[in-house]
Amino acid sequence: MEVKALEALMRAGNGTLPINVKVIIEGEEEVGGESIAEYVRKQKAKLKADFALVCDTELFAPEIPTLCVGLRGLVYTEIEAQGAKTDLHSGVYGGAAPNPLFALVEIISKLKDAKGKILIPGFYKNVKAPSKDELKTWKRLPFNEEHYRKTEVGSKVLTGEPGYSVLYRTWARPTLEVHGMPGGFTAPGAKTVIPAKATAKVSMRLVPNQDADDIFKRYSAFVKKLTPKGIETKIKVHSKGPACVVGTDNRYIKAATEALHDTFKKETVFIRSGGSIPIVTDFQDVLKVPSVMMGFGLPDDNLHAPNEKFHIPNFYRGIETICRFFEKLGEK
Amino acid sequence: MEVKALEALMRAGNGTLPINVKVIIEGEEEVGGESIAEYVRKQKAKLKADFALVCDTELFAPEIPTLCVGLRGLVYTEIEAQGAKTDLHSGVYGGAAPNPLFALVEIISKLKDAKGKILIPGFYKNVKAPSKDELKTWKRLPFNEEHYRKTEVGSKVLTGEPGYSVLYRTWARPTLEVHGMPGGFTAPGAKTVIPAKATAKVSMRLVPNQDADDIFKRYSAFVKKLTPKGIETKIKVHSKGPACVVGTDNRYIKAATEALHDTFKKETVFIRSGGSIPIVTDFQDVLKVPSVMMGFGLPDDNLHAPNEKFHIPNFYRGIETICRFFEKLGEK
Repeated sequence: MEVKALEALMRAGNGTLPINVKVIIEGEEEVGGESIAEYVRKQKAKLKADFALVCDTELFAPEIPTLCVGLRGLVYTEIEAQGAKTDLHSGVYGGAAPNPLFALVEIISKLKDAKGKILIPGFYKNVKAPSKDELKTWKRLPFNEEHYRKTEVGSKVLTGEPGYSVLYRTWARPTLEVHGMPGGFTAPGAKTVIPAKATAKVSMRLVPNQDADDIFKRYSAFVKKLTPKGIETKIKVHSKGPACVVGTDNRYIKAATEALHDTFKKETVFIRSGGSIPIVTDFQDVLKVPSVMMGFGLPDDNLHAPNEKFHIPNFYRGIETICRFFEKLGEK
Repeated sequence: MEVKALEALMRAGNGTLPINVKVIIEGEEEVGGESIAEYVRKQKAKLKADFALVCDTELFAPEIPTLCVGLRGLVYTEIEAQGAKTDLHSGVYGGAAPNPLFALVEIISKLKDAKGKILIPGFYKNVKAPSKDELKTWKRLPFNEEHYRKTEVGSKVLTGEPGYSVLYRTWARPTLEVHGMPGGFTAPGAKTVIPAKATAKVSMRLVPNQDADDIFKRYSAFVKKLTPKGIETKIKVHSKGPACVVGTDNRYIKAATEALHDTFKKETVFIRSGGSIPIVTDFQDVLKVPSVMMGFGLPDDNLHAPNEKFHIPNFYRGIETICRFFEKLGEK
């Protein structure tokens, strides 16, 4: 669509929007989004609305109009391990002093097996599998595993639990990752130190119906149990939120589906995302409004990674679709 | 001894030293000491000597004159692990993308068991135990394990292989430590990243008669074998040198023993150190000279660690002892 035609579409309401719009911008989503959650709790009246349009999701593929209807939850922790009172020389004390970095290695290695199965007792207890219908829909999506491996991930093989497809594993199975292990000597070169302290950033992605507090409790108890003698561990929570799946039989999702169709001239697909957008759960629980997750990113945008990008044509398509979406809602 | 008396002792030779002395200062020992090793190999003629006095060791306790007669060797490596081509979002790709940091955790956890036994095949094959006489001597040393744990290490328990004393474990048993694991997100806070790359600094202390090249070969082969699918590992060597035990029946050790006795008025003890001084092996192999390891540090000096110190009275006792040592050698 030309920019001029876009302008015309936006001005169709004679300079007024066809529905009332409140805009809320979240700038901390990558670090847990605590401030916006607090703001939403405090400003319930101000934020009163019929639904929320969340633009933090992506298209399944460049030309495929997509609505996201499910997100994984997240429990992001940091395990702090302490051994000796001070850093020690590994020659003089190696063989007698506890090494908290090695302790973290031992602990984390026992949280997940080599195939990706999480070993925390009771971890999978409440996991709710997607419906047969949803799984069927996923099978129809134009997904080429080899292309995904080569161009998106760029690794020699894909990993994860056997018996589940890539989409199932990344959208609807819980996972556990270690993101960084600060402590000890991390500069270039060598230093023969047994660090006094070390920490590990470990997170878990949750799926419906895992309870974030319950999972954190099970995880903490297991980490404590795995902590070797001579080491003290403390666990800090950076963020914590459940998975969420939104219903698709409301007028907001229907209007979004039509708007996407009018822009892309293709059938809209319903997918999930493996990521977490904690605010969607807050909108649901605190403001009691459903969310429409209609974003215009692409799978190769390098989210949260170096060289993150946004595909310019999707910027215009996004504007166009959202204009149409508002128009459709205004008509009804 | 008063400083004046010390001066008198030093000037006893009418302004000349009783023996010829060449001084070589090593400033890189904590990072592998590569330059001095190269210098020694290149300057064999210039460095020709009867023996080497090495002052990089410590007294067993503040008032106990000590000669060090054995050092552990060292193989210090860095394992570089690569998974995907770029950092990835752990929500979007968790469950499909290989995580090199978790791979390092898996690998390192399998190098050593929880009790401290190293699991690299053939690792202990050539280990030579100390003689019965040496072990008896160690048992007579005034060593209080509880005091050592509390004041030197400052940990809740001591760790290491069951069935060996602390001195045996730190002086004459090989060990394996992880010193730092750079990679991923290590700043304060949270970032949901599956890093593309991560590394781990892993070292092994060697004892007589482990061959450093042989151990490195076994270690590398085992790390490769443990490397999970989808991850590539490369191993870099930061430093590599064997253990060394010096003979005690030469005139240099005898003169040092007497000099220490004259200064401290106590019997000299022969100990080993768990640390490594690679240059001692070079002096032996390249210059063909024995070393006298007579240093004046103390066990609580915080070697290679924050707040490293040197006990001032030992500075003067050291000067005094070395003056006497030179005198004794000059007399003979």
